Amino acid sequence: MDAMDEEIIRELAKIVGDDYITTDDADLVAYSSDVLSSAFKKPDCVVMPKNTKQISDILKLANREKIPVIARGGGTSELGGCVAWHGGIILELRRMNRIKQIDVDNLMAVVEPGVICERLNQEARKYGLNFPPTVPTESVATLGGMVASNSSGLRSAKYGATTDYVIALEVVLTDGRIVRFGKPVYKTSSGYDLVHLFVGSEGTLGIVTEITLKLKPIPKYFATAYGLFDSLEESARAVAEIVKSGINPAGLEIVDLPTQQATNRLAKKYGGKLSEASFPEAEGLLLFELDGRDTAQIEADKIILQEIAEKHGCKEIIWAKNEEEREKMWFARKSVLVTLVRDKPTILIGDCILPPSKLPDLIRIMQDAGKKFGIKVYIIAHAADGNAHYLVPYDINDEDELRRLEALEDEIVHKTIELGGSVSGEHGIGQHRMKYMKPEHGESYEVMLAIKQLFDPNNILSPGTIFCE
Amino acid sequence: MDAMDEEIIRELAKIVGDDYITTDDADLVAYSSDVLSSAFKKPDCVVMPKNTKQISDILKLANREKIPVIARGGGTSELGGCVAWHGGIILELRRMNRIKQIDVDNLMAVVEPGVICERLNQEARKYGLNFPPTVPTESVATLGGMVASNSSGLRSAKYGATTDYVIALEVVLTDGRIVRFGKPVYKTSSGYDLVHLFVGSEGTLGIVTEITLKLKPIPKYFATAYGLFDSLEESARAVAEIVKSGINPAGLEIVDLPTQQATNRLAKKYGGKLSEASFPEAEGLLLFELDGRDTAQIEADKIILQEIAEKHGCKEIIWAKNEEEREKMWFARKSVLVTLVRDKPTILIGDCILPPSKLPDLIRIMQDAGKKFGIKVYIIAHAADGNAHYLVPYDINDEDELRRLEALEDEIVHKTIELGGSVSGEHGIGQHRMKYMKPEHGESYEVMLAIKQLFDPNNILSPGTIFCE
Repeated sequence: MDAMDEEIIRELAKIVGDDYITTDDADLVAYSSDVLSSAFKKPDCVVMPKNTKQISDILKLANREKIPVIARGGGTSELGGCVAWHGGIILELRRMNRIKQIDVDNLMAVVEPGVICERLNQEARKYGLNFPPTVPTESVATLGGMVASNSSGLRSAKYGATTDYVIALEVVLTDGRIVRFGKPVYKTSSGYDLVHLFVGSEGTLGIVTEITLKLKPIPKYFATAYGLFDSLEESARAVAEIVKSGINPAGLEIVDLPTQQATNRLAKKYGGKLSEASFPEAEGLLLFELDGRDTAQIEADKIILQEIAEKHGCKEIIWAKNEEEREKMWFARKSVLVTLVRDKPTILIGDCILPPSKLPDLIRIMQDAGKKFGIKVYIIAHAADGNAHYLVPYDINDEDELRRLEALEDEIVHKTIELGGSVSGEHGIGQHRMKYMKPEHGESYEVMLAIKQLFDPNNILSPGTIFCE
Repeated sequence: MDAMDEEIIRELAKIVGDDYITTDDADLVAYSSDVLSSAFKKPDCVVMPKNTKQISDILKLANREKIPVIARGGGTSELGGCVAWHGGIILELRRMNRIKQIDVDNLMAVVEPGVICERLNQEARKYGLNFPPTVPTESVATLGGMVASNSSGLRSAKYGATTDYVIALEVVLTDGRIVRFGKPVYKTSSGYDLVHLFVGSEGTLGIVTEITLKLKPIPKYFATAYGLFDSLEESARAVAEIVKSGINPAGLEIVDLPTQQATNRLAKKYGGKLSEASFPEAEGLLLFELDGRDTAQIEADKIILQEIAEKHGCKEIIWAKNEEEREKMWFARKSVLVTLVRDKPTILIGDCILPPSKLPDLIRIMQDAGKKFGIKVYIIAHAADGNAHYLVPYDINDEDELRRLEALEDEIVHKTIELGGSVSGEHGIGQHRMKYMKPEHGESYEVMLAIKQLFDPNNILSPGTIFCE
């Protein structure tokens, strides 16, 4: 698109008010990337609507003029998911930040998309409730963004992903129509499930303007521990057996030795609160947490868990003795990413997923690819889900490194697909992974594309993401 | 459609083999209705494919010739959901009955659509697993049918609906393309969620030919009881408070006094195994069940549950003392429908749903409508879901009764919609409830219709269901 017509800027300003649109170059630069990716493309303007009606008017205008509209929440995508690849309007949604309702009687919440995940949890906690999908970026990530990419994270083994909590949506379609999908009920068999078609659609089908979520009571008791193994592979085998056992841990994280060491080293180096992030070092490290409304169940599960771990050569289990120790364990895990990104300017994050029994294979694939292409790969995993991350801090100016990195990622992804897995367990496709859509989805890629064309015939919503077309 | 061309019958016979197609009038009559509805329309033929390839060939032919194709599993719809309203081909799927895999390591199963729910559970039980959505018709209902209508039933309060267990599908599209949606993984953020678009679509978007389901470990311990209340409304209030308390009962059923009395009377009358179906009689009756892997949690929850029940005037809680007594309680509940249908030739079954806190309102709406139109309404509810059934045995030849019945149902449904609920919690739309789609879904009805037209431009899949068009 050519630089945006002044007349259009004026029309947009009329919709949202002069204070809530910017074409200032410094602002455009600030909105030209997401938090972690190397993506960079300036939009033509940033618009900050306050309500559904304004978004409807913006989409009517954009659709008429065929101007791209890119919804943006906390900007924590690392895949170029909220970047204006073809210019156009960044739709900054953080002003739509009302928690409209906490329905304590029915364990539900109604929120606008710009509400930050942590804020909903702070509010819900007053009533003993929480929104379980915990992402490490919860202090920044918006619920709209989590719906767009079907986020999950540290507790999804037991509590599932965002999609499992979304029961109704208000959506603005490209032609400006305001529609409601779903009802505030626990289940429905009435008509097509458009709610879950929209969850994970990354802003490419319409703009979500209201979300009705299920909440859950906060568990009363926790048991949190590090399990130290002599072998990463054996720790992954323990995970697979824990899953099979029927114990349902709230968290079950794998952290490999290079990640432990780098986190320990860099966290100290950078100091401040971060310096408290510290792992005990072992070839294989499991961080696990059991939770519940009752201690007896947890105590029984601890025994089963311990037996399985020992069978797989676990040499020590360190239980958190109090809440402080528990928080310290999680703090180390949550600090991995923010620590590693201080090593090099940019970081590549993969999030392939396979069935949990294949987690040892997935880890081996990542390690082998690292060796093959001479790249240091850090591995962490939401292990009970079979969802493993490869983390590679890199220098975007090193062309040789970039080439090897691409080869490494291609290899990991294609081997995951061969084994029946998915390229993304929780982060999405964005721009960075478009090329993996066809290999993963085969013929159903065409079906997705047809749905995209149905909802967005002019391809104005986040063009240049998800689909190569 | 005119009677089907002989040439087309020959082509179909060539696809499935002469033994697996019938145009015999007795067969067509047998396939002209579903189990419980008063729907009646003869198809032109019944075809019994054995595999995906045959279904693909059938759809190619049907799409070319614009012949309706109606998928049918156990035929347990009571809404005319698997009736050939515009003639055409009944696609009888019960020969596609292979359990392809029980993946014990990853708690998954891969099945063909014709597998009967109970058979999967028998097989899974060998490994300590089960498929939790328990429908009272589980000995007849197929998994394909349960996917088509997003069934749930007696355990959905804790365990959710069919949609919560479906992770991947093989589907034949109208043009014969065979596509796969989803992966055998616990979560994914890769592309659009077509899996859950298809769950609940009642055979109107494509034919599901393979289903990958999550399974769960069978709970070890149960505590099951009748709670006897002086007031139906108070029993519903107790339910709402139980939901709010965070106790998560595996079952929480309401049975009103007329239903208890009719079941007791008719079950005796008809004898056999059915005569064992017997309720203690009370104005409000709750059947509840707690389950878990540990007795301590159950014992703790029993106390909370008892306190809440007593607060709402519960005069007695009768705990099942052993497995036999537990089974007897559930047998009575599961026998309600099969008992009531012996009273009159046909039965109307509603399944409106509201948030659980509004269950007392929903029950009152049903009672008031019964009084207003002079109709005896039996009320049962999957109460913790807010999903209440109105059951009305009726005589299809009594035109006055039919008129009053329609008025009654219109009133209940429209009041449910006004309160923010859905016309169907678990049964679907079929033909019977098409007229409620627009009132419930408003503008999003048009979106559903557009998706229908995208997937089935010639409207060959179950025409005359879900959509009035």
